[in-house]
Amino acid sequence: MTDALFLPNELESALRQIGAERYHVHHPFHRLLHDGELTRGQVQAWALNRYYYQASIPAKDAILMARLPTAELRREWRRRIEDHDGDGVKPGGIERWLKLAEGVGLDRAMVESTARILPATRFAVEAYVHFVRDRTLLEAIASSLTELFSPAIIAERVSGMLANYDWITEGTLAYFTPRLTQAPQDSEWALAYVKRHADTPEKQQAVLAALRFKCDVLWAQLDGLYLAYVAPGLIPPGAFVPGDAE
Amino acid sequence: MTDALFLPNELESALRQIGAERYHVHHPFHRLLHDGELTRGQVQAWALNRYYYQASIPAKDAILMARLPTAELRREWRRRIEDHDGDGVKPGGIERWLKLAEGVGLDRAMVESTARILPATRFAVEAYVHFVRDRTLLEAIASSLTELFSPAIIAERVSGMLANYDWITEGTLAYFTPRLTQAPQDSEWALAYVKRHADTPEKQQAVLAALRFKCDVLWAQLDGLYLAYVAPGLIPPGAFVPGDAE
Repeated sequence: MTDALFLPNELESALRQIGAERYHVHHPFHRLLHDGELTRGQVQAWALNRYYYQASIPAKDAILMARLPTAELRREWRRRIEDHDGDGVKPGGIERWLKLAEGVGLDRAMVESTARILPATRFAVEAYVHFVRDRTLLEAIASSLTELFSPAIIAERVSGMLANYDWITEGTLAYFTPRLTQAPQDSEWALAYVKRHADTPEKQQAVLAALRFKCDVLWAQLDGLYLAYVAPGLIPPGAFVPGDAE
Repeated sequence: MTDALFLPNELESALRQIGAERYHVHHPFHRLLHDGELTRGQVQAWALNRYYYQASIPAKDAILMARLPTAELRREWRRRIEDHDGDGVKPGGIERWLKLAEGVGLDRAMVESTARILPATRFAVEAYVHFVRDRTLLEAIASSLTELFSPAIIAERVSGMLANYDWITEGTLAYFTPRLTQAPQDSEWALAYVKRHADTPEKQQAVLAALRFKCDVLWAQLDGLYLAYVAPGLIPPGAFVPGDAE
């Protein structure tokens, strides 16, 4: 680890380099998913497990919001929670993900229970929530910067899934459309915050490590899906077995 | 889940049944390990990652000890920490595991840094530490009950590894010898505590779930090793690559 102080734009380049190397767009499970090489059961396993991540994001954001010192900062973060939880009229990200899960043939109550997800999913997602609770506020905000890379993966995922799975409709993938505008708004704000506040080499190394950690959280979820549902097909005791949901 | 109240011995049978179904002795990575079907690099990956679990146990036990209400209970738990940390003269479990790691060809400082372990290992082990901090004391103690099943796996592992790897010596596996007497002492105490204090159906279901959770923690660590180092050999960015340590 270098101890040099980066200029803000050098720090941004270093953050983007981490995404170029470690973001889960490079994971073989993602490629199989958007290339249409997964069975319906494998896509169900992805939707089921990814739901736990979606459903945990507002808890993560509420923990972070509770640590923000001003109304202005909390308003910025509250918007993210509304994006996921909805406003009671317009459905939020969690509701839209449940629609996706139902659209690929899963039972809504089974998905909401999270009882059949992989332990690897649960442990990775909880590691993210605990990180945001236990690390510095700067590291917690930096860990959200994977949103910098998500518009690309979403565009690729949606077009690939619509092109390659005739049983997946645009309505099923409606989750992703608002994220194409929400994610850049969120990540631009967080990036500006990190560039402004990471003003020592130690803080800059901490934000780079926080983004690496978050990439690990996303990567580990696809690792778990790959082992259990692609190869070698080692489904842990108690986890979802494709076919059970049909 | 049933709401029937088990008699203490019925609860013990239900706990032992969980071990019979979910303990990691049934994981294919364990079978490969003790059957001598792993390369030296694969055994190194196991020793490196398992070190993080070993090194985290005293933190887990200190968190649990801090929640115990009496000197008598804390003395019982303090003994476990001494087993792992040593007394300054007799080496503890962590020091003995480092000897094991060195014995299979790893650099001690690299192992102690834990910088190259799998994120899956880190997330699973931290989930265990957080569980003991955040759940009821009864659930925290119940989560230690995998020790009920460890003498069998240790005996199998040691004999299998000595028989099948000519580059592994009895000295390298000296970690395990004291565990054959420590683990039963620990688990008998914890089992008696759980049988005495789980006196409602809700508490009994909670201790059963705590033991299932702990089995998941151990299983997920072998899942991570299997995916990265056995098949398909998907090593996450930044993790240990066999050969680097040679």
